[in-house]
Amino acid sequence: MARRRSYWAWGYEDRFPSAETRAELAERVGGALGLPGFGSARAQAPLPKLEAMRPLAEPRYTPPRELRGIGTTEPHARASHTYGRGYRDLVRGFRGEFDSAPDWVFYPTEEAHLSELFRFCEHESVALIPFGGGTGLVGGTEHLATGRFRGTACVDLTAMDRVLEVDSLSHAARIQAGASGPRIREQLHGYGLALRHYPQSFELSTLGGWIATRATGHYATLYTHIGDFVESVRMMTPAGSFETQRLPSSAAGLRPDALVLGSEGALGIITEAWVRLQRPPRWRASASVHFARFEDGVDAARMLSQSGLYPSNCRLLDPFETLLHQVANNGASVLLIAFESADHPVDAWMERALSIATDLGGQCDEPKYTIDVVNSIAPRALAMLESPPPSRPSPVDHDTHDAAHWKQAFLEAPYLQSALVSLGVVCDTFETACTWDRFAELHDAVTRAVGAAMNTACGSGLLSCRFTHVHADGPAPTYTFLAPGRPGDELSQWAAIKAAARDAVVAHGGGQHYQAVGRLYQPDYRKEISPLFASVLEAAKGRFDPRGILNPGCLLPSKP
Amino acid sequence: MARRRSYWAWGYEDRFPSAETRAELAERVGGALGLPGFGSARAQAPLPKLEAMRPLAEPRYTPPRELRGIGTTEPHARASHTYGRGYRDLVRGFRGEFDSAPDWVFYPTEEAHLSELFRFCEHESVALIPFGGGTGLVGGTEHLATGRFRGTACVDLTAMDRVLEVDSLSHAARIQAGASGPRIREQLHGYGLALRHYPQSFELSTLGGWIATRATGHYATLYTHIGDFVESVRMMTPAGSFETQRLPSSAAGLRPDALVLGSEGALGIITEAWVRLQRPPRWRASASVHFARFEDGVDAARMLSQSGLYPSNCRLLDPFETLLHQVANNGASVLLIAFESADHPVDAWMERALSIATDLGGQCDEPKYTIDVVNSIAPRALAMLESPPPSRPSPVDHDTHDAAHWKQAFLEAPYLQSALVSLGVVCDTFETACTWDRFAELHDAVTRAVGAAMNTACGSGLLSCRFTHVHADGPAPTYTFLAPGRPGDELSQWAAIKAAARDAVVAHGGGQHYQAVGRLYQPDYRKEISPLFASVLEAAKGRFDPRGILNPGCLLPSKP
Repeated sequence: MARRRSYWAWGYEDRFPSAETRAELAERVGGALGLPGFGSARAQAPLPKLEAMRPLAEPRYTPPRELRGIGTTEPHARASHTYGRGYRDLVRGFRGEFDSAPDWVFYPTEEAHLSELFRFCEHESVALIPFGGGTGLVGGTEHLATGRFRGTACVDLTAMDRVLEVDSLSHAARIQAGASGPRIREQLHGYGLALRHYPQSFELSTLGGWIATRATGHYATLYTHIGDFVESVRMMTPAGSFETQRLPSSAAGLRPDALVLGSEGALGIITEAWVRLQRPPRWRASASVHFARFEDGVDAARMLSQSGLYPSNCRLLDPFETLLHQVANNGASVLLIAFESADHPVDAWMERALSIATDLGGQCDEPKYTIDVVNSIAPRALAMLESPPPSRPSPVDHDTHDAAHWKQAFLEAPYLQSALVSLGVVCDTFETACTWDRFAELHDAVTRAVGAAMNTACGSGLLSCRFTHVHADGPAPTYTFLAPGRPGDELSQWAAIKAAARDAVVAHGGGQHYQAVGRLYQPDYRKEISPLFASVLEAAKGRFDPRGILNPGCLLPSKP
Repeated sequence: MARRRSYWAWGYEDRFPSAETRAELAERVGGALGLPGFGSARAQAPLPKLEAMRPLAEPRYTPPRELRGIGTTEPHARASHTYGRGYRDLVRGFRGEFDSAPDWVFYPTEEAHLSELFRFCEHESVALIPFGGGTGLVGGTEHLATGRFRGTACVDLTAMDRVLEVDSLSHAARIQAGASGPRIREQLHGYGLALRHYPQSFELSTLGGWIATRATGHYATLYTHIGDFVESVRMMTPAGSFETQRLPSSAAGLRPDALVLGSEGALGIITEAWVRLQRPPRWRASASVHFARFEDGVDAARMLSQSGLYPSNCRLLDPFETLLHQVANNGASVLLIAFESADHPVDAWMERALSIATDLGGQCDEPKYTIDVVNSIAPRALAMLESPPPSRPSPVDHDTHDAAHWKQAFLEAPYLQSALVSLGVVCDTFETACTWDRFAELHDAVTRAVGAAMNTACGSGLLSCRFTHVHADGPAPTYTFLAPGRPGDELSQWAAIKAAARDAVVAHGGGQHYQAVGRLYQPDYRKEISPLFASVLEAAKGRFDPRGILNPGCLLPSKP
């Protein structure tokens, strides 16, 4: 039997933290918040069950026979496709609020099914919401049948998950949009090639979702966004299909893929793409450098980003982040540095990087870094193919002690967030990108504004910061906050903290980096872009989706 | 007195090859074509003079006083702004065909002047053609006052050439669009930073022109396009200004700069941009590897492009290319490899690269590579500031014997092309990009089709190939052809060869790489992009430039 996804929480049901783990988590968080006992009662309470909930409303329309064959109204499918997996989604799901569940969920297996769906939805005024891994954080998946819509339909692309062609010479493959990270990995295994794009949602999210949201992966430098790997892309729209030419690079005129990358299901449905692959790394080096002062770690990250060494990992964790992820508990900030190559040993790279970091006051244990050499590609490729055991995902990368801890925590974090929601903790991340000259002020302003907002809304709270990516001209900091929720008030407490964070970020020149726009940031995006650009987006929407059935309200304001 | 640009040929008047050089060139080309004596009579003939030509037509309109103050109708200005510097342009200029000269040339010094110009041109139905360095190859600069236009105006941005702000921490600067390569270099000198974008037109072309045409630079990998250096950009349009947010990276929604990069003056006029800078290299290593078989050189370039070593130079020259540029004359193909860094010695990089190349049969003289270490930034920065002597531009990079020859030739090539035009040689370059799996067939087809077309149109001819950039998934080959012209027939001979080249490239999956779209490739671009994308481009044109005054016929078809 296929593993079942949780209808409300992150990921697979069998990966949801046990009552024991949740009790431990409650103890740790209560201790950190200075509220011993917080959440411990809730850790013992039974988790919500779909069967115990108020039944979902009857579907408001009946699709034609050919679409019924690829669709379902089964409650678990409808509930699990109601939301993405941002904090708001988790809280609403945990509470059993599924009034906006899609009437039907469709699983197309070919492009012709999409054309059928477009025709039906246009004719019957049904809003059509595309769905990949369902891991979005910004309200890109919402089924609001406002005014002009009779109902909503969710189109889940995960049955279109095949690798269609592999070009071993050019290191590229044509892949269907519904393929998840593991599905892509297993199909490419025999070719000795991999799409080395590892977002935190890797286990669940899909190629089409990555392209639609311009998702970032695990590389700290160079290949930070899925867009860096896309050669060409194909998208279906109600007005016809849209395909870009497969080329290594082009400098002729405006880039046509600019209307696909980041289109968030509002302009069309991505069906396949040619993507760039790499050979899996054979040489890897990994180090962790401790800094007594966070600012020195920031300087080291900046120097590394401007060094031309291009580390695959260059993640700076502040003291609370190191504590959260059990990397260190001595108040130090930790910079995780890694290099990898399929072609050559990376010692020269690592030695120079460590010399930069230690010149700025960083401390390393001996040996300063660990080396991992994979002598043959096959065993590693085989290892990559194995399913991760339920309780511990296989790390995607090489490891020092700190790095291993951090990576394990990185992949577990979304599961833990769901568990924290079940304990009544208000907990979320927000991220930004800014140029180096602005970071110190932005960080200070964010720390103060979010601290004040947590105190006002929740009485207390904790904030951590890490760099997920570093560019030569600036970092991409991600912040995580944890605060004690009041039962029933969590969403308004969360909204107050998020608003304070947003205002501080915008006031100090930060921009949105990796979480996409969705419905959550649609008004902010509107303010960031020029009115002239917004008018062209609207024109594109009008031409691709003249009836406005696709993901209404996401990316662009919904038409009444 | 400021150096004067040639009104018809490439670059500065004082750099135009002397009669002696042209005689030598005629001898070399005649020898290579097997037509001794070809062009030698023309090498002795006097060059055309503006004063001896039929006078330009009277301007067809009179601008208001405030615009007259920044404008001119002086014949040298009008003639030298009539064309870009593609082959067609050079032939028409050499022949003295300046019927389409702009009525006025304007030199704005501030954005308000552009607003004035937009208002005037819209009101008076004057076509407005933006002009940076005037070095375009694809007919982006043409002044055709068709039907609805009373006349044309050229807006030369080169008086807006200042570096406005430098952010030394983030390695970035805000620079006005009219700044040429040398103007940017000299203003950044004191900061120990440089915009390391060196197209072949570096001496003349401008930041705005680079962004408008998505120009490629000298880096063979990673930072191949100006777009890789652009943080944010500002563009004026008849409908208002358009500005993107200054960020190191963003993944939120569709990229607004996608409507500016590659807009070719048809959507607006770029006025300034924040661009990413680098410290000038302190360590450089340079090698040239000879291959008896071109195919082995192709394999080596591919392996290097997929190695993760990121050489700054990885240029493969075929035997005729090495002969043309006097790098070798033994029938070998030569791969020029270079690494550079401001941060660390690059020996480990070069040694691995040479091991890849020699494993594939490449031969290197001893010492296999040369190292160039600049111990202090200041002297080098000073050297960069010095104007190149008229007869020999300072090389932009590190040098082996072969590399030095090649680079000198690279920068001289456009001057030599003008000289070849004066000798009656039909000579041009065309370029493409394709994935590695398609290259062998494409190259074979291009070689045969262009060879046949040269034989038919000219009786004989020579074709060379080099890789200008290599991407992990494919190369960007550039072809140069030389054939004997018949006086008066050169343009139809050239057109027949270009058409054959284009058909062969398109039939084998090649795309446009660096020469932009202009008017020359506008119909091809139309075929490459999907009709849905074309309709959005038209919508953008309609919103940014509702009267259609900006560069009509460039990038998009001209409205009647």
